[in-house]
Formats: sequence, C-alpha cells, structure tokens
Amino acid sequence: MINNNTLDENMETLNYDEAVKLVKAEVERALVKSPFIIREYLSHLALTQGKYIRATSVIVAAQDGNGYVHSDAVKAAGVIELIHLASLVHDDIIDNADIRRGKPTLQNKYGKRTAVICGDYLLSLALKMASEANDKNRGTEIDFPDYISRICLGELEQHINNLNLNLSIFQYLKIISGKTAALFEASFFAGAAVLKVSDEELRNYKQIGYYIGMIFQLSDDCIDFDTSADIANKPVQSDYEQGVITLPLIHAFQNLEEFKQKAEKAKITREEINQAIMKTGGLAFTKGLIKRYYDKAMHRINELEINEEKKTKIIFILNKAARIQ
Amino acid sequence: MINNNTLDENMETLNYDEAVKLVKAEVERALVKSPFIIREYLSHLALTQGKYIRATSVIVAAQDGNGYVHSDAVKAAGVIELIHLASLVHDDIIDNADIRRGKPTLQNKYGKRTAVICGDYLLSLALKMASEANDKNRGTEIDFPDYISRICLGELEQHINNLNLNLSIFQYLKIISGKTAALFEASFFAGAAVLKVSDEELRNYKQIGYYIGMIFQLSDDCIDFDTSADIANKPVQSDYEQGVITLPLIHAFQNLEEFKQKAEKAKITREEINQAIMKTGGLAFTKGLIKRYYDKAMHRINELEINEEKKTKIIFILNKAARIQ
Repeated sequence: MINNNTLDENMETLNYDEAVKLVKAEVERALVKSPFIIREYLSHLALTQGKYIRATSVIVAAQDGNGYVHSDAVKAAGVIELIHLASLVHDDIIDNADIRRGKPTLQNKYGKRTAVICGDYLLSLALKMASEANDKNRGTEIDFPDYISRICLGELEQHINNLNLNLSIFQYLKIISGKTAALFEASFFAGAAVLKVSDEELRNYKQIGYYIGMIFQLSDDCIDFDTSADIANKPVQSDYEQGVITLPLIHAFQNLEEFKQKAEKAKITREEINQAIMKTGGLAFTKGLIKRYYDKAMHRINELEINEEKKTKIIFILNKAARIQ
Repeated sequence: MINNNTLDENMETLNYDEAVKLVKAEVERALVKSPFIIREYLSHLALTQGKYIRATSVIVAAQDGNGYVHSDAVKAAGVIELIHLASLVHDDIIDNADIRRGKPTLQNKYGKRTAVICGDYLLSLALKMASEANDKNRGTEIDFPDYISRICLGELEQHINNLNLNLSIFQYLKIISGKTAALFEASFFAGAAVLKVSDEELRNYKQIGYYIGMIFQLSDDCIDFDTSADIANKPVQSDYEQGVITLPLIHAFQNLEEFKQKAEKAKITREEINQAIMKTGGLAFTKGLIKRYYDKAMHRINELEINEEKKTKIIFILNKAARIQ
C-alpha cells in the first residue's frame, strides 16, 4: 500500500503499522524540510526522538472496526508529537537541563536563546500541520491551542510551586493534569474525533487519555525515588534537586513532621529523601493512586464500543504508561 | 451601536472607531479572563500595551467602501496583537531586556522561566482567538502559524548573526523581513481577507504591509543612532550593545575598513559607532532605503481600489512607520 515513507494525498486509509510508521515520517519531514538555518537544530532533536507513546495513542484511538486508520489521524498524531517536542525544548530551558534521552539538550548545545526560538518554531509547525488535515470536518473538532494553554498553565503552576513544601496532593494533581495528562487526553480525543464517534464515546476516549496521562506522570515520579531501579536509568538530577516536589515526597512531608521541618531549614540530601519516603510508604501511596486511575481507565475502556484487538492495544498503552510491560 | 466594550456575537459590522476600541477590549478580555495563576503576569503586560499599529492596520485594511468593518477583523487584529505580545515576551528573554515601554519586563519581574511559559501561553491564546472568528471562510484564508514560523526564522537568523561584523545588507534585510515585516504583512493580509477582495488586490495589501514593516524596522534602527533625538527616548542598551548589527552600522563597516578592523579586535564604544556612522553617512543611506520602500508602498496604495478616506488612513500608517507624523 505504501511505496515510500510519505503521506500520499489520495491515500485515505492505512493499517496500524503503516500509520505509525507514517507519523514518524511526517514529523521527520516537518523537521528536516525546515529552512536550512533551523534544520541543524531540529535534526538534532529528531535524533533524540522518544517512544511516540502519544502518537501511538492517536493511531490506536483512530482505528476502525477493521483496524484501519484515516490518514488525518497521522496528521493529528504528528501535531501532538510536535507540540510535545516544543514543550520538551522549552522545559529544558526552564529546568536548565543538559541531557535529554541521552543526548545534549538544545539549550545546552546551542544556548537558551536558540532554544526559546526553536520551541516557538516547533509550535508553529505543529499548528501548521493541524491545518493540513484533508477533511476539515474531522480535524477541527479538537482545539489544539486550547490544549497548549492547558499545558502552559500546568507548567506555570509547577514553577510557582517550586520548592513549596506545603504543596497539597490536590494542587499537585492539578499541576500534572495540565503538564502531562492534557496532551494524552488530546491524543485519544484527536484519534476518536477522526473516527467520528458519538459524543458519549468521545468523552470516554478523552477520559481514558486523561487517566493514562495521570498514570504516566505518577509512574515517572515513582522512578525518581525507586531505589530498586537500575541507577543508570535515573536522571542525572532528581526532581527535588530541580525544586519539583512530586507525590511520593508530598506524602512524606505530610506524614513525617520532623522531615518537613528539616527540609524547611536546610537542603535535604537524596539519601534523606529516600529514607523518608521509605518510612512513610510514599511509593506505595503513589502506586495506590495509580491503581485507582488504572481501574477508572479500565472501566472506561470496557465501555467503549470496540473489538478485542483494539481493546488489547489500548490496554497495552495503559500498561506502558503504568510501566507494567 | 455598542453598549459595552465587548464584541456582540450578532453584531457583524462596526465603524472604524468602534472596531479599534473593540480590539483593545478583545485583547484585554483574553488577557484578563485568563485563569488566576496567569492573570497577574498578563495584566502587567496589558499595562505596558503599545500603540496597536498592527491592529490599526488590520482594521483599516478591512474597511469597506462605507467605512465599515466586519467584526471578524476585530478578532484577526486581536490575534495579531497577541502574537506580537508573545514575541515581545520571548524577545525580552533572548535580549535579557529589563525594561519595555517604560515598565519592567516579564522576564525581569518574574524570571525567565515564567516568561518562557507566558510567551507560549500568549501564542496559544492568539491561535484560540483565530479559531473564534464567526465566518470561518473569512478568517481561515490567513495561515497564522506560517507567519509565526517566519517570525521565528527571522529571529533565529538575527541571533546566529549576533556580532557578525560581515553581515551583508541582503542578509540583514532578510532578517528583518521575518522579524518585523512578516507581522505587518499579516496585518494587511488579514484585514483584506476579511473584506474578501480579489486575489490581485489581496497581493497588493500584503505587499503594502510588508513594505510598511520594513520601513518600521529600518526607521527604528535609525533612532538607535540618531544623535539629534531626545536622549530620554533612547533605549537603555543600544542594538550594538546587544550584539545586533543594524543597517546604519553595516554600512559603516562596509565603508570604513579601519573601523571594522578596530571592532574585530576590541569592543567599540557608542561614541565611536556614532562617529563612524556620521562619517560614512549610514543614516542617510538607511533613510534612502526607507524612501525606496516608501515609494514602492505608495505605488501599491495607489493601485488599490479604495476611496480617498481609506487611502488617507493607510498613508497615515505608512507615515507613522516611517516616523513622519
């Protein structure tokens, strides 16, 4: 069905593997076909591409009863991956991050100025791609700028609460619902919108995406503290060293008064943090919350009017987000 | 016709004054109605609002034979002002600027992190507003993300050529055509698109906007070196102190070899720069180029199928860009 790695205007339906392959080709085409001056920076980014979990979510959600996907879903998945890339580039500026996915970050390699502009450029690429969908009635149902706003608000709230030892669980969940869950919600939303499902079904897809996003972030938070995990896979700087207070630590602060008092007075070490989290059961608490989101997601997945093959694929993404593989 | 300062969904046509007033109200509404967390930052920005020359361009270009304007032009003007605000916020990070329009910049008052996020948020607000135009067939003719790309590329090219003493006139004009002229072009384009003019007429409007943008930037460049200008109106830091080489200085480097050699070896003072520019006639040279763009713009304005009142308004904007008032 495919002769080369580009999206043929006349080709409307694709099978799952073709679609996933084409998303990568679409994103790389957008990055590599950029004007010369920006290409160097963006091919560097393309090299450090992630696992495309968001793009895969769009494609899976867009699969029809026969397993086929409309080509507009490929565009939508490309849009979401580009928004994600843009947010990574700007996040690295905010976090002063030097390494991402084992490669030097844009802000590290080319400076903050370049990274600010490249992030903006990626956003504009994303929204240009959003306007390229062949069937306007499919693509326009999702308001991408609104999702970008939600991501910004989550990030801003996180930044404002940097080193806030009194951050509540509720506040934290609100932060990650913007910072991370919004784009997962958008992924399932975009896929289901291409499929033109009923409003009720669409709400289910959105909610599943949202829960998967929450699970993805909370599982990430656990890795930061999981002493059993391979040390090589840990980030160079822990969240706390960046001033980011995540759920296991919030739980420790709430349940170990002397630990919080110590943190208020002086800088606490990673060792002390790990001990406090172990003592208070911060990881088990977070995993309990992950389990609740997992069950909610599963409940919604069972409500979808889909065949077993598609259900298996959605559950695979859910498990990937929960790091159960 | 208007009871309050908000855009009534049912109200399609406005006169010029109403429309200009409503653009400001629309932008302020977007800024002020933002969620609590971001409002504080954005109301600070709203306080330092500029002269709305781009918004005025949209409204003037959108005026019909009776001087009326479709309400979609108000939305388009709001979009362009928000894109402009976003670019200012990110520019200030890039330039390390502390003061803008007499007020502390966002990056100065709240830090670079906040400014990166707020700029992204403003872009998303702009593109959300773009999708709010009532008559989709009017608004969608202009590809706002594409204009954002062009601005980014101009800024990136400027950044890469920071302190490049061999920057050519051609390269410089390419930089400012993205950095500044693109958004002026978009302004006239957006206005004319709302008016639904013919393709040929639309090309004229776009070109007029482009020329006005070039004139606006080149005139700005002159102010930086104009020793006759009131010192109080000068920026705290000159372009050169930021590493930005503008046209009068490029001309001086090209025509005064010993001056360029000196600049290659050591930091040159503002006094030395002013003298070199005076000696080589850098300001007269730049003003000559402004005059050429001015004549080109005037030629296109005379080709427009418009009445005298509208022509006068466009020439007023042209003169404002050229600082002839």
